[in-house]
Amino acid sequence: MQRTYVKDTINYIGQEVMVSGWAHKIRLMGAGLAFVVVRDVTGLIQGVCETEAVINKLNGVGTESVIKMKGNIVKEERVALGVEMKVTDIEVVSIVKEELVVQLNKKELKANIDTILDHRALTLRHPRIRQAFILQAKLAQYFSDFLTKERFIRIFSPKIVKAGAEGGANIFTIDYFKQKAYLTQSPQFYKQIMVGIFERVFELGPVFRAEEHNTTRHLNEYTSMDFEMGFIESFKDVTRMENDLLIYMFGKLKEECSEIFEEYKMPLPQVPENIPHLTLRECQEILESKFKQKCLGEPDFAPEDEKLICKYAHEELGSEFLFVTHYPSAKRPFYAMDDPNDPQYTVSFDLLFRGLEITTGGQRVHEYDMYLEKMKSRGMNTDDFGFYLEAFKYGMPPHGGLAIGLERLTAKLLGLENIREATLFPRDLTRLIP
Amino acid sequence: MQRTYVKDTINYIGQEVMVSGWAHKIRLMGAGLAFVVVRDVTGLIQGVCETEAVINKLNGVGTESVIKMKGNIVKEERVALGVEMKVTDIEVVSIVKEELVVQLNKKELKANIDTILDHRALTLRHPRIRQAFILQAKLAQYFSDFLTKERFIRIFSPKIVKAGAEGGANIFTIDYFKQKAYLTQSPQFYKQIMVGIFERVFELGPVFRAEEHNTTRHLNEYTSMDFEMGFIESFKDVTRMENDLLIYMFGKLKEECSEIFEEYKMPLPQVPENIPHLTLRECQEILESKFKQKCLGEPDFAPEDEKLICKYAHEELGSEFLFVTHYPSAKRPFYAMDDPNDPQYTVSFDLLFRGLEITTGGQRVHEYDMYLEKMKSRGMNTDDFGFYLEAFKYGMPPHGGLAIGLERLTAKLLGLENIREATLFPRDLTRLIP
Repeated sequence: MQRTYVKDTINYIGQEVMVSGWAHKIRLMGAGLAFVVVRDVTGLIQGVCETEAVINKLNGVGTESVIKMKGNIVKEERVALGVEMKVTDIEVVSIVKEELVVQLNKKELKANIDTILDHRALTLRHPRIRQAFILQAKLAQYFSDFLTKERFIRIFSPKIVKAGAEGGANIFTIDYFKQKAYLTQSPQFYKQIMVGIFERVFELGPVFRAEEHNTTRHLNEYTSMDFEMGFIESFKDVTRMENDLLIYMFGKLKEECSEIFEEYKMPLPQVPENIPHLTLRECQEILESKFKQKCLGEPDFAPEDEKLICKYAHEELGSEFLFVTHYPSAKRPFYAMDDPNDPQYTVSFDLLFRGLEITTGGQRVHEYDMYLEKMKSRGMNTDDFGFYLEAFKYGMPPHGGLAIGLERLTAKLLGLENIREATLFPRDLTRLIP
Repeated sequence: MQRTYVKDTINYIGQEVMVSGWAHKIRLMGAGLAFVVVRDVTGLIQGVCETEAVINKLNGVGTESVIKMKGNIVKEERVALGVEMKVTDIEVVSIVKEELVVQLNKKELKANIDTILDHRALTLRHPRIRQAFILQAKLAQYFSDFLTKERFIRIFSPKIVKAGAEGGANIFTIDYFKQKAYLTQSPQFYKQIMVGIFERVFELGPVFRAEEHNTTRHLNEYTSMDFEMGFIESFKDVTRMENDLLIYMFGKLKEECSEIFEEYKMPLPQVPENIPHLTLRECQEILESKFKQKCLGEPDFAPEDEKLICKYAHEELGSEFLFVTHYPSAKRPFYAMDDPNDPQYTVSFDLLFRGLEITTGGQRVHEYDMYLEKMKSRGMNTDDFGFYLEAFKYGMPPHGGLAIGLERLTAKLLGLENIREATLFPRDLTRLIP
């Protein structure tokens, strides 16, 4: 008998079907009655077992055993699915004999974060937890679909590199045959080079930061959704593109993922037609005058200020999203374009969402001579970057781009407090397993 | 004036438009005449300059300079595009003063492979070369689209790992804070774990092999297109899925990429409704009897035999694709399921295409006790794999999957002799730059 997905059983009332999945809950009531809840990728269905022959098959079968359950679908309005199964037969495909480390069949998984992360093979099976990663897969898909429609071409750039894009010590080293190599911090150099080939490119892949942070918002490996676009007039073409991208992505989320937001009791944010832009300095003035925060002249926000300015944007500007622009040159990488009107600042931006930076982007330098000048003024050896500078030596249009952290976006959307909860198998200072 | 893409100029005959792109070719003919070919991401258009004012703007402007070219579109049947531009104005956006290292404006790029790879920022701009990577982006997209439709969920597994899936010495080591870590050779463990959560999963990401091979078909970093599916009856459910996937992908290629195949003078292969299956032993018998190759009893093909058996499949079975099945257990990883009818062999397979293995896959062990037994018999320490074995301890369905090498598939489709030509920025024994 062909398998029917749990979600589709509603179409088979009065008929016999077979479902397959994990024994989410087993209750032996005695007196010829047992209940078995089967979980597959689409949902949960309760089976009612009323014959000794079937009930005997449940002897010694622990929850999470993989089973096939056959029976008749009947209406049952007290359950969310709307149906249950009168079980006629059960086949145990893979038996579990041990007690589970954590209980998966409660509405909430009751365990501390370390237990949840240590036993990922099990805890990811929890119906609510796995939903976060369905959402994450969708976000990645919408990102790719939108950009493909906008003539961006997907690229695959190397993760083993000879030079880091962000500089500094936050880079992992590898033994690469007898050479020293690094794990990429960002596809920055490669996506810029590729603007010279395809004008608009995107990449969706891992990046690595050897930061010794141990916070709820940092990972040492994460998924970066990058794009870069040529022939722009200003950095506002980039923020416009992200604004449109977010409108598309959130529209699709509303269409396809409403259940997940209900499960997490989170509202789906509205993306304004025009996300407000404020310069860093304007933000700091607001923080000083409205919130009495001392921050004027700082090169970036403190986490607390990030939250306050988001609160301000939400309440005063009606937007959960805020583009903060014009970060100081001294704090941005060498490839950031300086503002021609005030070269102490760059035409760069971050996108803040619910108190957290989820995007960094900006216009880049595109002139070869300007690169040489900026790199020399920072004491960089331009010889190390010959492969990159070649792109600019041979003609590059004005361009800009950005990177969105997939895990941060997932976490913020679902109200997850720790970024690790938005990562299948997180990597942090101490965590290399699972 | 808004920019018009080159490909769309055909719709503006008799009208004035502006194109932007790279000066692919500049010919100053003297006597008030010059030709400028502009290349953008969509194609090439020739501009005819007949006024001194415009021609003067080309003074000192080298090829690959980025320019905006404005003018009237006129019919011109002698060129592929069908139109050219009578230029009224040119603006140089980014000037190139140096001679190019290689000429990009010939039909074929005349340079040896090292020059081509050393100057990737430039050589990828060649109209033919860049086409290969448009194809590659499409392959990745079709792979994701098909699997998403088939209820596979995309996952992002870590690339920094504590244990290698393939074992052996072919693994890069990383300094991970004070621990020793590795770069993943395959998402194998994680995609199997995720079958326990989503039943069907796929991943598209980098994998790393520290192999000291220096061949035209090995890379030390490549893009692996992986999927894994649960609730299978046999490994043939996996080959069936790949067969359907290939039918879909090649159907889309025919729709959207015919030009690229014409450019490379390669036929688009037909994917048979049922790709033939032969066991390794059957292949070896054919190789011995038809081709006088001594190979019976070998655990795998020599490269020459791989080519011959593909020739056989093409000529005798009418297929450029061939599933070779039942590789010996001794040569497959511990997670490969043994054939219940003959445990010396595994229910695994490779897919050969045009003389090269482009997929490895098979059914996996799904029983916890069988894992313990197989790992112990190979002298593996099961404690190192606790995070992985946990998935099987807590109930896993029969499952299987495969991995397709994206660069190999690209290379074979376009007849590229060296896998490096199918890689934007290849990594090999000595190549870490660009």
